[in-house]
Order: sequence, then structure tokens, then C-alpha cells
Amino acid sequence: MTIEDPRTTVTDKENDMNRKKTLEIVEVEAKKYFVDASGCHDWTHIERVRALVKRIGREEKADLFVLEIAALLHDVSRGEEMRKGGGFCHAEHGAEESEKILTCLGCESDLIDRVTHCIRTHRKRGKNVPESLEAKILFDADKLDALGAVGIGRSFLFAGMAGSKTLYTGNEKELVKNGKDYSYTKEDSVFLEYEQHLKNLKDRMLTKTGKAIAKERSDFMKDFFTQFWKEVGGKD
Amino acid sequence: MTIEDPRTTVTDKENDMNRKKTLEIVEVEAKKYFVDASGCHDWTHIERVRALVKRIGREEKADLFVLEIAALLHDVSRGEEMRKGGGFCHAEHGAEESEKILTCLGCESDLIDRVTHCIRTHRKRGKNVPESLEAKILFDADKLDALGAVGIGRSFLFAGMAGSKTLYTGNEKELVKNGKDYSYTKEDSVFLEYEQHLKNLKDRMLTKTGKAIAKERSDFMKDFFTQFWKEVGGKD
Repeated sequence: MTIEDPRTTVTDKENDMNRKKTLEIVEVEAKKYFVDASGCHDWTHIERVRALVKRIGREEKADLFVLEIAALLHDVSRGEEMRKGGGFCHAEHGAEESEKILTCLGCESDLIDRVTHCIRTHRKRGKNVPESLEAKILFDADKLDALGAVGIGRSFLFAGMAGSKTLYTGNEKELVKNGKDYSYTKEDSVFLEYEQHLKNLKDRMLTKTGKAIAKERSDFMKDFFTQFWKEVGGKD
Repeated sequence: MTIEDPRTTVTDKENDMNRKKTLEIVEVEAKKYFVDASGCHDWTHIERVRALVKRIGREEKADLFVLEIAALLHDVSRGEEMRKGGGFCHAEHGAEESEKILTCLGCESDLIDRVTHCIRTHRKRGKNVPESLEAKILFDADKLDALGAVGIGRSFLFAGMAGSKTLYTGNEKELVKNGKDYSYTKEDSVFLEYEQHLKNLKDRMLTKTGKAIAKERSDFMKDFFTQFWKEVGGKD
């Protein structure tokens, strides 16, 4: 027999039921935007970010309802960004698109504002800077997905999809010294991307929990590439 | 001042010089076959296999000269196999091509026989089974390149190049139970390839040193995927 907490009122239970229902509908709506998605930002990315915001949100005592909705919707406009290219920001447009979705679902304006702030600022570009705790958590979770074992898998998969011809060029350590950005050039490689971008992501985290996870995932990547180069030289 | 080993005769030194020169020319000739190579079996694969045969060869007290030539030439016909497809075996054809190259260089028939045996049998298919120590070592080195951190990178890069749309399907553990081969189907993924093929490669090694390296690289892969799935669930 389960003893119920006497402080749990009928209204609390109704709220829980409503929230669960809202999340289910938001998930269905969000998924529609990912039918043709592939690679690093397909629906599995959303599921991983959702799991991470829940984990970080619990630690940081944030609003999990806002976080889950924001995670589900944060990349709804990424597909459109891919198609339209320069000038289109999937974070800004995604916030507008999410506002429409949540308004249709009859969500309160306060909830909509809190969710769209997270989505609009999840890239932390220009004036769109995460201010609420939930926005900071979404930013961290989204970036964390580029680190660790998943980050390694994502990077090599993306390189292959983008037409990279080799595992490494062997010029990476020299190129890093130049300080230039070699993204989308023939000099680019997963290891260069790691050296130039991924290695420093841990310093961009905004929450204490995000920083701790980023440190662990960064260490994992560092160990991976240490092993990688040992194997390349047949010295593992 | 370096004290020379009195047993080292002028002929030994000449032999060393000749061998070095032969290796340099074989390398130049082999590279010509890799101009358009990409992905898992580009020239970097040859360099890694070369490093590995030297390492294993030293441990197993094998003929390093035979091994290095065989490593350099073992995939010269892979490009043609890719273009021609079914029925063409790059190991068999590569042995014939290598025989021509080495004959042109004036190599002795015994050396040519020992090298081509390695190349012909490096896939260990049908009647072409590695019998010499050097052939066993080339087989091990070639397979070892599919394991460890390099094996992980290779697998994800190849998946991306082959048009895989996602990091994982989430159905892998169920599909493994079926025992079917899902290569080149839409159900295929890096993790399925790992579960169905790469995980068991360590049991196919033919030399003691190969087995030891395979064990370490297999353990590395196992740890990688353990971490991978923890991250997917946000529980790392």
C-alpha cells in the first residue's frame, strides 16, 4: 500500500496530469519538424538534451516543466536554417515558432515567455544571452551534447556526412598554431575541430552542474585522442 | 665514438642500404594507387598498418622487410575493388599487382613469393589462409586498425560517408538478438556494427602479440560505448 503525501491536493494531481499531457503534445508537435533531420541534430539530439536538462535542472533546482518544453522545441527551426542558410537564426525563429505552438495549446503567457527566452538565447549570440536559470541550463545541455563519447561519435559522423576524405590530415597540430578557423576547408578534420573548438567548450558552461559534466566529458575526449594518436603510431 | 659491431660486414651495410632504398621505391609506387582513396582505407590506413606490422613483427621475431613491403602493398587493388564491385578480390588482385611491381624493381623471387603470400591471404577468405608468420602478422595488423580509438573514428566516419542519418537507431540491442546481418540496410549503425562484428574481432587474431593488442583495443571500445550510452541517457 502506498501512503500518499497528505499535502498533495487534488489540484496538484490535476496540475501534474496537465503538465504530462502538455509535454506529450509538445513532443508530438516538435517531432514533426524532425522528419527529414539527420546527423548531429536529429531527434536523438533532442532526446539527449531533454535528459540532460532534467538532470542539470534537478541539481540546480530549476523549473523542470519549462526546461523540458524548451528542450523539446529548441531546434524546431534548425531544418529551416539548413535550407535557407545565412541570416536565418534557428534560435530566434525557433522561439517565434514555439510561441505559436504553445499559444495553440492554450499555455499561459508567463510559461510561453519563460520557454521562448530559453530557446531564443540557447546559442548565446549577440543580444540573445541566457538570463534565467532555465536558459542557462538549456545552453549548457545543448553544448554538452558536443562533448564526451557522443561528441566524438557526432564529430566523426558529421565529418563523413560533410564529405571529409580522411580520419586526420596529420597537419592539425601545425594548423592550430596559426589560429585560423579551418571549418569547411579541405584542411578541416575532427581532430582540428576538437583542438580549435570542442576542447574549450567546457569553459563556456554557465551553471555549476554544467561545468562539472563538461569537465568529465572533456577529460574523456582528451583521453580518447591520446589513445587515438598512440594507435596511429602503433604505440598503444 | 660509436663502436661498430665487428660482425657487421660491408655486405650487411649494403644490404641495409638496398632494403631502405627498396622500401622507399615501394612506398612511392604504392602511394600512386591511393590518390583518390578516402575514408577508412586511405593512405593513413597503410601508414598505421605499417607501424603495427613493425611493432608486432619485432615482438614475434618476424622478417620486418617482408612485412613492411607487404603492408605498403596490401591494399593497392582496393580502389579497383570499389569501382568493379562483386567478384573482384582486392587481396588476390593486389598480390598479382604487387608481383608486377616487385618484379620491375628486380626483387628476388623468394622475396616476391613471401610478400605476395601475405597480400593474397590478408583477408583470410576461402583457400587463401595466412600460413607464414608474416602473413599472420599482416592479417592481425589490418584487423587491429578496425579496433580501438581509431576503429571508433573509422566506424563513425564511414557511417557518415555511407549516408547514415543518425548516431544510433536505438534498436541495436534488439536487432543483435535476431542474428541477421544488417550491413548496408537502413537499420545499420555504428553500434550495430560494433555489436555484430567489431566486438568479436579480437577472437580472430592469429599471433600472440596481435591477440594482446586486440584485447586492449577491444576493452577501449567497450568502455567507449559504455560511456556513450550513459551520456545518451544523461547519466554519465
